[in-house]
Amino acid sequence: MKSYKELLDYFNSELSVLGSEGSVCTFPSEPDNLYKPIIYALNQGGKRLRPILLLLSCEINGGNIKDAICPALGIEIFHNFTLLHDDIMDNATVRRNKPTVCNKWNNNIAILAGDTMFALAITLVTNTKSEFVKPILDIFSQTSVKVCEGQQFDMDFENEKFVSIDKYIDMIYLKTAIVISSALKIGALIAGASVKTQNAIAEYGKNIGLAFQIMDDYLDTYGNTETFGKTIGNDISCCKKTFLYLKALEVADTDTRSILTTIYNDCSLPPATKTKKVVDIFNSLNANNITLEYVDYYYNKADKCLNDSGLSPEAVDHLKELGNSMFRRNC
Amino acid sequence: MKSYKELLDYFNSELSVLGSEGSVCTFPSEPDNLYKPIIYALNQGGKRLRPILLLLSCEINGGNIKDAICPALGIEIFHNFTLLHDDIMDNATVRRNKPTVCNKWNNNIAILAGDTMFALAITLVTNTKSEFVKPILDIFSQTSVKVCEGQQFDMDFENEKFVSIDKYIDMIYLKTAIVISSALKIGALIAGASVKTQNAIAEYGKNIGLAFQIMDDYLDTYGNTETFGKTIGNDISCCKKTFLYLKALEVADTDTRSILTTIYNDCSLPPATKTKKVVDIFNSLNANNITLEYVDYYYNKADKCLNDSGLSPEAVDHLKELGNSMFRRNC
Repeated sequence: MKSYKELLDYFNSELSVLGSEGSVCTFPSEPDNLYKPIIYALNQGGKRLRPILLLLSCEINGGNIKDAICPALGIEIFHNFTLLHDDIMDNATVRRNKPTVCNKWNNNIAILAGDTMFALAITLVTNTKSEFVKPILDIFSQTSVKVCEGQQFDMDFENEKFVSIDKYIDMIYLKTAIVISSALKIGALIAGASVKTQNAIAEYGKNIGLAFQIMDDYLDTYGNTETFGKTIGNDISCCKKTFLYLKALEVADTDTRSILTTIYNDCSLPPATKTKKVVDIFNSLNANNITLEYVDYYYNKADKCLNDSGLSPEAVDHLKELGNSMFRRNC
Repeated sequence: MKSYKELLDYFNSELSVLGSEGSVCTFPSEPDNLYKPIIYALNQGGKRLRPILLLLSCEINGGNIKDAICPALGIEIFHNFTLLHDDIMDNATVRRNKPTVCNKWNNNIAILAGDTMFALAITLVTNTKSEFVKPILDIFSQTSVKVCEGQQFDMDFENEKFVSIDKYIDMIYLKTAIVISSALKIGALIAGASVKTQNAIAEYGKNIGLAFQIMDDYLDTYGNTETFGKTIGNDISCCKKTFLYLKALEVADTDTRSILTTIYNDCSLPPATKTKKVVDIFNSLNANNITLEYVDYYYNKADKCLNDSGLSPEAVDHLKELGNSMFRRNC
């Protein structure tokens, strides 16, 4: 079975020619202001988690990854469409160390390039054997709606004083984990896996997705800039309601909760001072370790989903190995 | 065969319950900030041209309009999604005498509500007999990409000094006429019409769509506020490159072209003064009558497409009659 690098090389080789003649999906020469931002957005690199999982899921279920390459491209384009629109909503100027589309061009072009990417994703994700078109479309369209709901909940949370951990988990499921879950399910479906296996592997994806997102929150505060690849402390500077913060609020006594809330939402504090004060409170409440326990809980839950999945032991081992290499991250 | 009013009543009765329990498509109770704007946008009325044409095309081809109601709802939601995003790009505050979604809520909510409507449209437009899912999806996804291209061309034209009539026609085809054409094609497809009939009826739709849009440009300057339903002279105030303006530039001599360009792009002139000056030049160049000749040309071309379409004479008559009542507009 193929390694992560082999799958990534295959995927990237198809992605790099997307739009040009001879590719699975050609773009017209005009309008330039539409297709240039799309090609720019798709060539910003990244780990390509979602499409690689889709290909991997197809392969471990005995399918041919060539049947899954268009859906894999579609899921990556869909993911990048959501990033383009999220960046507008978040006023983000930089992504993966490069200017965002809304920054390099403008918001209108980013809206429209995103819309076009969504439309292209529909075409690509259903470009496979005809018997799979309808079930893939059902997964894809439902997932798309749910991702929008997740983004809306995330925006709504900004205006709420407190958000329960349950609601937060629901939000990150909708915003992040569901696409990972659906990518795995589509890959299994294309390989002709049983419904039981499709559902087990989708459940696996949901749980690694949740673990991944909670770890992302953890690393934003406790990570190492070099290995994490983003600025540490950004969530605290932006008063973002993360798992760490919400968990700290949940376990704190009334006085500590009040102090934490005040400091966390005080935009006048210098970032370094604010981060230190907040981290001290997080540590005193053991919120860092509790957060890591949640990460472990979801990783373990993910692994358990594969026990009775109908996958061969080799397939399970291969999925866990690649899943670990892609998703598990050190502090 | 059903009248326009009967088809509209049927469509509106299904649209009015969309999202609620028992409907073809239910919405979750949350997030409110996502589904309230969607329901608001879908309940702003309008002639529902696209879905009615889809139902009509199904009926005149011998199909059951119940098989076409979900695709009809899907095409209307898709159209409204494009309006939501266009309104952001155009900074539009009012549509159909009501605040736009981006004005009543904000741009972020309008972006996300639009994205969700696009996702819902995918589900609905393909919710019909399984054998039609793939061909409808192909039409729909290609149409979606083209509509985005049309909107980008429209935005690009704002920054160009002159746009040829050919390019302008291409743009309005992509932005407007293609959805009308695709709605008719999907309706025929669901009714099991031959490819020849599907293509003929799509071509009819393209041409009435072009005629409709050119007439819209004409009426914005020469129309009657009451019957047109929009402010007269708006395009001139906004320096919009309309068919009238581009045709006037095309037929003008060098001096007149220079005068017209200067006046048309002068934002300091009082609107009434500017409109009068521009209309005087349009009239002197006969641009108004030439524009009406183009409208007639496309309406006639539309009718001719039906001559050898394979549709029965009764079906052709019914389509022309309803098409006329929906599309032909008086000054």
